[in-house]
Order: sequence, then C-alpha cells, then structure tokens
Amino acid sequence: MGNAYAMVMTEFSAPLQYMEFDKPQPKGGEALIRVSACGICGSDVHVWKGQDSRSRLPMILGHEGVGIVESLGGAQKIDIMGRPVKEGDLVVWNRGVSCKACYFCLVKRKCYLCSSRWTYGFSKSIHDYPYLNGAYASHILLTPETDIILVSPAEGLSDDIDPVLLASACCAGTSVACAFEQADVRPGDNVVIQGPGPLGIYSVIFARESGARNIVVVGGTPQRLAMCKEAGATAIIDRNATTEEERVAMVRALCDGRGAGHVFEMTGAAEAIPEGLRYAAVDGSYVSAGIAVDVGDVPVNWFRDVVRKNIKIQGVWVGDAKNTWQALEVYQKHKHILGQMITHRIPLTDATAALQMMESKEAIKAVLVP
Amino acid sequence: MGNAYAMVMTEFSAPLQYMEFDKPQPKGGEALIRVSACGICGSDVHVWKGQDSRSRLPMILGHEGVGIVESLGGAQKIDIMGRPVKEGDLVVWNRGVSCKACYFCLVKRKCYLCSSRWTYGFSKSIHDYPYLNGAYASHILLTPETDIILVSPAEGLSDDIDPVLLASACCAGTSVACAFEQADVRPGDNVVIQGPGPLGIYSVIFARESGARNIVVVGGTPQRLAMCKEAGATAIIDRNATTEEERVAMVRALCDGRGAGHVFEMTGAAEAIPEGLRYAAVDGSYVSAGIAVDVGDVPVNWFRDVVRKNIKIQGVWVGDAKNTWQALEVYQKHKHILGQMITHRIPLTDATAALQMMESKEAIKAVLVP
Amino acid sequence: MGNAYAMVMTEFSAPLQYMEFDKPQPKGGEALIRVSACGICGSDVHVWKGQDSRSRLPMILGHEGVGIVESLGGAQKIDIMGRPVKEGDLVVWNRGVSCKACYFCLVKRKCYLCSSRWTYGFSKSIHDYPYLNGAYASHILLTPETDIILVSPAEGLSDDIDPVLLASACCAGTSVACAFEQADVRPGDNVVIQGPGPLGIYSVIFARESGARNIVVVGGTPQRLAMCKEAGATAIIDRNATTEEERVAMVRALCDGRGAGHVFEMTGAAEAIPEGLRYAAVDGSYVSAGIAVDVGDVPVNWFRDVVRKNIKIQGVWVGDAKNTWQALEVYQKHKHILGQMITHRIPLTDATAALQMMESKEAIKAVLVP
Amino acid sequence: MGNAYAMVMTEFSAPLQYMEFDKPQPKGGEALIRVSACGICGSDVHVWKGQDSRSRLPMILGHEGVGIVESLGGAQKIDIMGRPVKEGDLVVWNRGVSCKACYFCLVKRKCYLCSSRWTYGFSKSIHDYPYLNGAYASHILLTPETDIILVSPAEGLSDDIDPVLLASACCAGTSVACAFEQADVRPGDNVVIQGPGPLGIYSVIFARESGARNIVVVGGTPQRLAMCKEAGATAIIDRNATTEEERVAMVRALCDGRGAGHVFEMTGAAEAIPEGLRYAAVDGSYVSAGIAVDVGDVPVNWFRDVVRKNIKIQGVWVGDAKNTWQALEVYQKHKHILGQMITHRIPLTDATAALQMMESKEAIKAVLVP
Repeated sequence: MGNAYAMVMTEFSAPLQYMEFDKPQPKGGEALIRVSACGICGSDVHVWKGQDSRSRLPMILGHEGVGIVESLGGAQKIDIMGRPVKEGDLVVWNRGVSCKACYFCLVKRKCYLCSSRWTYGFSKSIHDYPYLNGAYASHILLTPETDIILVSPAEGLSDDIDPVLLASACCAGTSVACAFEQADVRPGDNVVIQGPGPLGIYSVIFARESGARNIVVVGGTPQRLAMCKEAGATAIIDRNATTEEERVAMVRALCDGRGAGHVFEMTGAAEAIPEGLRYAAVDGSYVSAGIAVDVGDVPVNWFRDVVRKNIKIQGVWVGDAKNTWQALEVYQKHKHILGQMITHRIPLTDATAALQMMESKEAIKAVLVP
Repeated sequence: MGNAYAMVMTEFSAPLQYMEFDKPQPKGGEALIRVSACGICGSDVHVWKGQDSRSRLPMILGHEGVGIVESLGGAQKIDIMGRPVKEGDLVVWNRGVSCKACYFCLVKRKCYLCSSRWTYGFSKSIHDYPYLNGAYASHILLTPETDIILVSPAEGLSDDIDPVLLASACCAGTSVACAFEQADVRPGDNVVIQGPGPLGIYSVIFARESGARNIVVVGGTPQRLAMCKEAGATAIIDRNATTEEERVAMVRALCDGRGAGHVFEMTGAAEAIPEGLRYAAVDGSYVSAGIAVDVGDVPVNWFRDVVRKNIKIQGVWVGDAKNTWQALEVYQKHKHILGQMITHRIPLTDATAALQMMESKEAIKAVLVP
Repeated sequence: MGNAYAMVMTEFSAPLQYMEFDKPQPKGGEALIRVSACGICGSDVHVWKGQDSRSRLPMILGHEGVGIVESLGGAQKIDIMGRPVKEGDLVVWNRGVSCKACYFCLVKRKCYLCSSRWTYGFSKSIHDYPYLNGAYASHILLTPETDIILVSPAEGLSDDIDPVLLASACCAGTSVACAFEQADVRPGDNVVIQGPGPLGIYSVIFARESGARNIVVVGGTPQRLAMCKEAGATAIIDRNATTEEERVAMVRALCDGRGAGHVFEMTGAAEAIPEGLRYAAVDGSYVSAGIAVDVGDVPVNWFRDVVRKNIKIQGVWVGDAKNTWQALEVYQKHKHILGQMITHRIPLTDATAALQMMESKEAIKAVLVP
Repeated sequence: MGNAYAMVMTEFSAPLQYMEFDKPQPKGGEALIRVSACGICGSDVHVWKGQDSRSRLPMILGHEGVGIVESLGGAQKIDIMGRPVKEGDLVVWNRGVSCKACYFCLVKRKCYLCSSRWTYGFSKSIHDYPYLNGAYASHILLTPETDIILVSPAEGLSDDIDPVLLASACCAGTSVACAFEQADVRPGDNVVIQGPGPLGIYSVIFARESGARNIVVVGGTPQRLAMCKEAGATAIIDRNATTEEERVAMVRALCDGRGAGHVFEMTGAAEAIPEGLRYAAVDGSYVSAGIAVDVGDVPVNWFRDVVRKNIKIQGVWVGDAKNTWQALEVYQKHKHILGQMITHRIPLTDATAALQMMESKEAIKAVLVP
C-alpha cells in the first residue's frame, strides 16, 4: 500500500506543513478518493487566519475537492442520481455531511441546515474520523453517509473534463444554486449582482440560465467585472468610479426605471447590504449569500427599503447535494467562462503561497493540484 | 335632496370641523354609501398630527368604513365575488383604488403595490374627486373603480351583523391577511407575534386559522395581552416584566427549543425588529407589517440573524381586495373576540376626542358612528 | 429474555397464525418496541386478500403501530424533533424507511418517493431483517434508519393519551397531511371532500386547521357522513340520495356558485374522479390520495374539466415523517372526533375477525390491542 | 379621413369577404391601431370551420395582431410597463380584455380566467363595440381597458424589428409563457415537449430560458422537429417512426432513466395525453396547454400515472398581459428561430388561402400582412 500526504495547518497564519499518512483502507461504505484538484475558498483564508472559532488544530483545509475513486469499502456505491460508482470514476461530493434524521433534515427537508452537519476541510482535526478529512491532500476518505456525485465514469473520462474547473462547483456553485433556488428568477426578470468574485460569476451564469433579461454586476475590480461581462452580464458598474447615489440611479435606469426584481449579495461586505436593498424594485427580493463571518450590525432603513417596498430578504446558508448537482449541470454549459475564472493552478505543496494569493485578491480563484 | 356631513381636518393637530356637503348623485358606476361605522386607525393619528407628508388639507379622514348602499349610479353593480349589489345592502370596500393597468397591477399581479394607488381617507383633499372621499362622514362616494365587497344583502340584514365590528377588517384585518398570505403558516407551525394591538389580535386569529400550534404574543400592555390570550394565544410575554435575553429564551423554550418558524412584527416600533429576528428559528420567516412610518435605520445582525439562520424576511405593505375578503371571512368565525377589541364606540361628531383616545392608547380600537 | 409473538399471514385470505418469536436484543441504533396498538388499514385488507403483488409470505401485517420503547441498542436515540428517546417512552414511527441517499430523497427532497423505500407491515417477510417487521405483534424491531417520533416521555405518560387513537395518525393522517401540504388551502377557501372514511375525516380536520370556509363531504354511508359533520364539515351530501347532476349543482351552490377551490379524493373509487373534477371551480385543485391499487383507466373530460378550468391535479403517494408529525399535531387538537372514528378495539389474537370487519365496512376503523 | 377595411367572415367555411369600414375616431382612452401583421392561429381555423359555438357572424378574425398606433383618443396612454404610448409607436396588446373587478381578476389574481373576458378576433361580431375588433384588418380599435405593450417607440423603430415575427408572441408565446409560469422548470431539469408546432417551438425556447438540461420534442412532422432541434431541443422523436412503447423507453433513457421532470402537452391531440403522462418521472409535472376544443373523454391510468407517481397535472387556459410581455422578452433573444417558424407571409386579402394553408399543415405559421 502506498502513502498519502496532506498539507496540514498546525498553527494559524503559519505555513501549512507537509505530512505523510498511512493510506487508509476504506470499509463499510467508505470511499477513498485520490484528489485531482481542490479549490481554495475565501473562507479557507478566514480559517487559516484563525477567524473561525470552530477550527480545531491540527487540521487539513479543503472543501472544494474533486477526485478519482481509488478504492471502495465493500458494498456497491451509488451516487445521488442512482448511478453506480466504481473505482476509477471521477467524482465530487457534498462537502457537508448531515444526519438525515433531525428536524431540519426531515421536517424542513433542508439537509444543509442540519443541526449536526459537519464539513470536510472545516469541522474536524486530523485526530477526528475520518482523519484524512480535508482536500488539501493527496487523498481524502469519504464516510459512508457522504453524498457522492458522479462526474464521469472511468471509461468515459476524456480530456474534455478538467477537474480543476469542477472544484468551484462544490462550494461557490453550490451556494449560488441554493440562492437561486430560493429566489425564483423567471424569464424576463431583472437581476443585479453585488460582487464579481467566484460567487458573482456563478450568479451571472445562473441568472442567464433562469432567463433573466438585464443582468447588472456591481463591483470594484475591473478585471473581475470584465469577466462577468464575458459570462453574460448585460451591464457592469465600477464601485470605484461611482458614488452610491449614482449606482442606485444607474441600476434603476438599467432596470426599467423601477429597480431590480432580484438583487443578489455575493460580496461578503457589510456595507453592500444597505446599498443593495436600495437597488431592489418594489416587490423585489434581496438574497444574501456572500456573508460568511460575523460582520456585526448592518443598518437597514426598514420602512423605506423593506416594508414600503414589500421586499423579501432571504439569507442563504451554504446548500446541499441538490445544489451541487445543479452547479455541475450549469458547469457543463459554461465551461469556458468558469475556466477563465480559475486564474491560478498551483501545486498542492505550495498551498501556503496559494492562500496568500487569494488573500491579496491577486487570484480570482486558485486551485491546488496534488 | 338631503344633506351630507363630514368631520373635516382643516389643520393638523387641531379639532376636526363639522362641515355640511351637498349629497352627491352617483352616476356611471359610482355608489353613494351611507356610512354605518368607521374605525380609527393608528395611522389616522399620524396623519392628524401632520406626520404624513402626503396629506393635503382640507381632508376627510377615515379608511375603515362600513356602510349601506344609499344609491347607485345607473349600471348594475357587482361585488368582487360576483354578487349583485343593490340599494340597502351592507358593504365594505377596498380602501385603496388601483389603476389595474400598471406593471404592479398586471405583471406583479399585486394591486396593492400599484404605483398610482390612492386611498380613501388618506390621499385626497375635499377638492379632489370624489370629494366625499373619507369615512369620517355621514356619506362617502365610491368611484366606479372601487372594489366593493357585499357583507349582507338588504333583505338578509340582521342584528347579528354589527357594522362596528366590521370596521377593523378593512384595514388591520386586510394587512394581517396580506402578511399571512406571504408567510405560509402550516398546521403544526410555531408562531410568535410582536405587538398585541388590533394587528396583533388579528394575527392571533389568522395563526389559529392557519393551524399554528404554539402562538406566543409579546407586548407591553397587560389588558391587550389578556385579550390575545382569549383570542387563542397559547402564551403571552410581558415586555415590561422581562429582559430581552429572557424573552429570547422564553420564546425558544416555548417553541421546541428552536425558536419560532414564523415571527410577525405588528408593533410599529423599530426596536422590536432586531429582537424579533432573534426569536426566529433556523429557516424561519420574519414578516413585518407594523411599521407604517419612517423609523430610520434598524441595526440587524446580518450574519447571525439572517444568513446563518437562512431566514426569510418579508416586508408587508397594506393589502388588497382579496385580503379584505379574507379578513371578512375570518371575522365571521371570531366575532366575539373582535367585538371585545372594539373598546369604544363614539359619535362621529366626537371624532377629535376619539383620535386623542387612540393616541393615548386608552382605546385598543375606537369606532366612529355617524 | 421473554418471548414475543405475532399474528402471521402464511396464506392469502386465510386466518392469520399466532406464532412465537425470540424477542430480539436491539443493537447499533435499533429500537425494540412493545406494541401498544396497531390500526387496521384498508390496504391491509387488500394485502390479506392477495391483491398486492409485492407481498412475500409468510409476513406480519401492520403499518399503523404505536408502542412503548422496551429497549434500545446502545447509542443515544433522538427523535425527529431532536428530543431524546428513552426506554418507557411512547412513540410512533415513519412506517416507510427511505435510503436518504437517492435522487428522490436528496434532489427532490421527498423521502416518501424514495426508489428503495420499504414499509413495515408491507414489504418484507418474516425471513427478512428486521424479522419482527409488522405491528400485528407484541413487539416490533425498528431499524437504526427508522424515523421515530416521540409522543410522550415515560415520565409524562398519562391516561389522557390513548395509543389506540394515535394509530390512525401514522397512515391515514400522514397521507392526508401530505395531501394538504401539496394543496395549499388558505383561510376562506372552499373545500369538497369525496369519501367520509378515515382519510375523509382527517381531511375535514385538516381543512378546518387550514381555515377553510365551506367544507362539504360527499359519501354514501350516513353514519360516516354524520361523523364528518361532527368533525366540522359544514355540509354533507349523500350519494345514495342524489344523482351526479344534483351533486354537482349542490356543490356549486354551496361554494359561491363557482364550485370548490379544492377537491380532495379520499374514496379509493375510480368513479369518484370524473365526478369530483366537475366539483372544482375554475383555477381549482383536485388532489387525489384515496386510490391505493390499480383502478384502470379513468375517463377525464380533458378540455372541459382540466384545460378550460385551468385546473391543477395532484396525485398523492403516502407521505413522510414530516407528515406523520403534522398528523400528530392535529390529533392533539381533535382527539374527541378521532376517538369516535375508532369504532372497534379488538384483541390482537382476533386480528382475522378484525380484517373481516374492515372488509365488510362494519367498522370505520378497527385497532388491534396486544 | 381615409378608409379602413377587413376580411370579414360572413359564413363558416366560406371565403372571407373584403369589406370597407369608416375609420373610427378613437376617444376616451381608445387607441386606433394600423395593423402591421396578424398571425393565423390554429384556433382561427376551428372558428372558420364553425367548430366554436361562441362565434357570432359576421365577424373579423385575428387575435395575434401587431401594429402602429395611428391615433389616440385624448388622454395620455401608458403601456403595462409604465412607458408612454404615442402615435407612431409599434405595439402589441393583450388579446383578452378582462373586467378587473371579478373574483378571478381580484381574488385569484389571474385576469386570464376572468368570467367576463372577451377576446379580439373571437368573441364579437362587427356589430359589437369596438366593431373593428379583429386583426384580419387594416385597422383595429382598442378599447380603453385593453392592455397595451410597447414594442418600440416611433423614434426607435428600426428594420431590426419585424412585426411579422412578433405576431406569434401574442398567442402561442403567451400561452406557453403561462404554461411555464405554472410549471416551475429549474436549471438542470429535464423537459419533454409533445408537439413541434408554434406552441412547441416556443416551449423549446422557454425550456432553454429556464435552464433545462435535456429538452426532448416528440412529434410527427420531420421539418417541424428539425426546427425544434435548431431552436435548442437536445433530442427529437418522430412519432411516425416509433411505437408508443419505444417512445416511452426513449424518453426514459434520455432523462436519466427516470422520465421527465416536466412534460408539456402542446399538440391539441387527445391521444397525446395518456402517452405523455407515461413520459413523466415520479414527482413530475404534466402541463397541458394544447387542447383548445372539446376532445371528449381521455382515458387516464389514474393509479399508475397520477397517484403512484405523485404527479402534478396543470391545465393551462390562455394567459394574460404578463405572459405576453414574457413572450416578447423571449422573442428578443430568439428572433432567428422564431423567424424561421413563420413559413408564410401572405397579403391580408388572401386570408382565405392562408387559412387553408394552416388547415393542411402546409404552413407552420402563416402571417397576414395588410
């Protein structure tokens, strides 16, 4: 049996450590995956910097993994679409593992809100089962309960499928799919997206797939805005070249003089929220999926921006296997632009440098390749 | 032709003036109504005190009118349920008149959000058609476009129907119906209501009619809370006898340890909002219908109370003829408690005193009787 | 270790056989339940008569079980609401066990449509794990994956809770909850229910809990119709005393001259369907939950009854743990009438006689008590 | 003042008659439109052949009109999006005129189900106001209540906008938009469309705009199927080259082995319905918009195809101004393929020949040009 290795975070804000592990032998429904690629998420940077109180060191980051099934523990494995999963197949998986037995799983029927959900690359240390539980690694061990989604069977694997591009579907794509699932954009609707990062680019694509008419992206990084344009945005607004009043007026003008039917917050910045609520038309919706850490109190002009406009606001917390599957479907149609979003492919052993690149926003999206 | 009269507001915060008018002859689909009762709404107090910038003096207040059809202008009149309306019938009407031709009426299909909607007792001076356009009056003239709802045909009018009780259905009942329409409470759900005034009492009744299990009302006036209890609240919480932390803990304990599936803001007070968002369970909804004037910025802990909990917030602006009809249906089943809500029946000529009584909260609900 | 016994079906249409079993020792998340009561469902009669091709003999019938936790296999057990389950507690359980891993469980998020769902008292022989897998027995062994719902903890068990009454919630109540979940009845809506049996009585109660205004039940058994009236139906129509044309006209007259907003088929009879579609108003819904076996082709006047009226038809197949929980909530409020529905309490050893009683419609609902 | 003319149907199945009319002077909110193009709908053929009992002779056919505002009756005219309408503008209009005051308009909020809705080119004879009330004419007079949708202001009219292509949006496009509004297709869903005519082609486009993954069209005319393919269908099935069993198997294979999440009946043929229900996956929806005349009883295997699969069936009756607007939005993005759908442009005076061409299916879509 060969060896496995991972880049382990033993200390916050410090370089990740290369560590070797005995490659585990999967049993009882487990699956051992040879990681093909792992995206670096913005929240990885937060964890690395010690800003997430749930982190338990030493741990392996990486919740945007894509890989090849190296070995299966016994029983026949089936993916969420009912397809058999075999050794050699290319797969992704739901990064969150839910109990499927609690109030949120069974009565609310939203596994992503499970009260005992845990996440690969987030929730566990290397001392917690399944030990190889993050994808900044050569291998990851999936528990029997993990939802697997087959991307391509071994025999169908072509050069046309690039695991690196798939990485973003597991996290950014999943959250955006969950946001759109709760938003109900219909053909002809106007959409404004705040934030031109990976979440924003996925949002442009989902807006197109939902038949949106005007798709306006507001952001501060010209290159990212340009990529949104290429992805299908019908207009872009540069925050650094405009005032808030100008942006509100521009959005209104671009959206039939009424404002947007749907505004998607994909920034992570608290100050986007009061401004974004102003973009919304009467009876519009404001869907917030970009805020991943405590940003404190946000001032909302409740009468003018919520009640008087009969607005719906929807907070979006992650997503589940359904949403990951939707993101993969969308990926199939928009490979080209999602490929452009991946600005950096970096050897796994350079993970620390990759984290720094994401922190500095030098990269839109960096993906680690073992 | 006999005379009509109204109590006219000629100056803000000053006594209303008794004025006589020529009783109009309805024509071309108009309906002249002899007012039987008119509720005093909390917002009437705001307008009277000059806090609503849209007011144009001199004007007649009164948007919660109930009355008898005195004469019809020609053509056969049909109510919104398809029933003929004849002289002598008891009716209510949609206080708002929408264009039924704009984007909000036709594409959003929500007439209450019509961009040129005007309201009896609110939007017009006595110099604007239809002149007798508020229900603090002996008569009101309804335009042809006004949605009429038949309560009882002349021949079926019994003492069992008290117009005074119906008054609240037109405004408080309508807004609450619209709030519940957008909330989707289902059998077994837990509901918390902030504010035990007329809106809150209607909310208790709608929660019961929607099959809610636990119905918790939070408020500061013991008599009002007691009335909510009688209306069907399963628990009440006195704001003056508890801290915010205690209330949050009590709500959680009363709602399966998770918090409420649905929180309804029916207070009009900005400080209720951040607290109410804390009452909501993960995946819960927060429906805000109580705020009728600008209350400035409200601080919302966006990550903790919106995103992390995957919360839906819905602002509620008024309601339309459908909602008034729903409120009337609910009124039929809960006459007793709605009767108790009407604490004062006051002669129309004492309208000024009645406004003061509502301002001081001496009355839960006062109704004027010509 | 004491003994367990069951009434086993070894041959179709023949008397069930009393058989003793070694009482199993639960392990690894299993729960051994001492059965307190088990309802006899109409579909039990179908299975007994050999009309269900899925049956594998010898088997134990009984999917409407209620019981006391006798022993637990190790790990802490939690019910679907997050409450701990301990020995001595009174519980019910989801009669269907789903994989929680397939397309229907994860993407459609409807576990009741799981492609590998199996059902206690239906799907398995006594040679299939968990062997004691039907509730016509002194004990039943629940697998670790089974959804359990706590009715009352051991220390809170009072005479006020009658397990016999709960039995109906697990099947009839669950299906009706699922039907209403998909129907969206709102305060003020008109409802017609076809069939006054257990499903119909539950439907009356759910219609009330949903705020329905007129609740009309159509059926052929006067005693059952009378019970529906007592449960809250506002009108009943006797099929044996009327023609189809008369019934269509009566329904229309009872429902504002337009027909019903919601028609629920709870009969199991094919001929109810074309007639019931005629009851529906324009834009109404027709929800069919009563048909449990192949009834062949049903003639539907597609233009007149579906397209021209813009009708929604919804087929309803069983339900899941959420719906059982909703049925239990509704049971709490309507014990009295649900108690009346249970016309016969019969010793478990007389199960064969009880099946005959249900077949002959002598009983509305018979419940076996070990 | 110049003259107006129309091709008038004075007798069923007989040649239409050229008749001249005094060109009316619009007043009080009316609009006189100079017709640019008028589509021939399949239902025009039914009416012409005397198969619609509502027809009153002599009458002017034509409900798919597009035209230029020639003159306005006084008041400022606003379209449904809030844009001013002026002389010289290119417009379409909602072919149905609703009362906006009845139960269906106000309580159900679906103007297309209005109980007193009338339709241009359908409901009225030339002796009924507004007399010039069908678009097989040089001019049509729109009543003040008619919903107008601005396509292009006079000053923006370019050669890029071809009125002939717009004609289909008013009827086929509107019905399909209404079907998709009620169906809720989401990114990744599988769609099957029965019928490759104008309704079917619009359905392909709406399915694409809704993010559908597999879009399968079943039909009997190779050229029409080829056009669907070009419009974006991912697979086509020729009814004349396959058996029903083969088609059911093909659909299943094309849709993940489960069948379609959404089946759209766009054929007008009764026999399509039982077959189409078999295409649907468990929990799928079947939306029927193609049946426009009585086709008698359709046999539905209720248990297998409705209940056991938990299917939703939705009848679709026409659509309203919102849906016409959605169809126009979709038209903007897919002009090319919609242009191909218009196989014949025919002078208005040859209307009789055009009707024959549609009857023989020689044309997919013929449009009359005055």
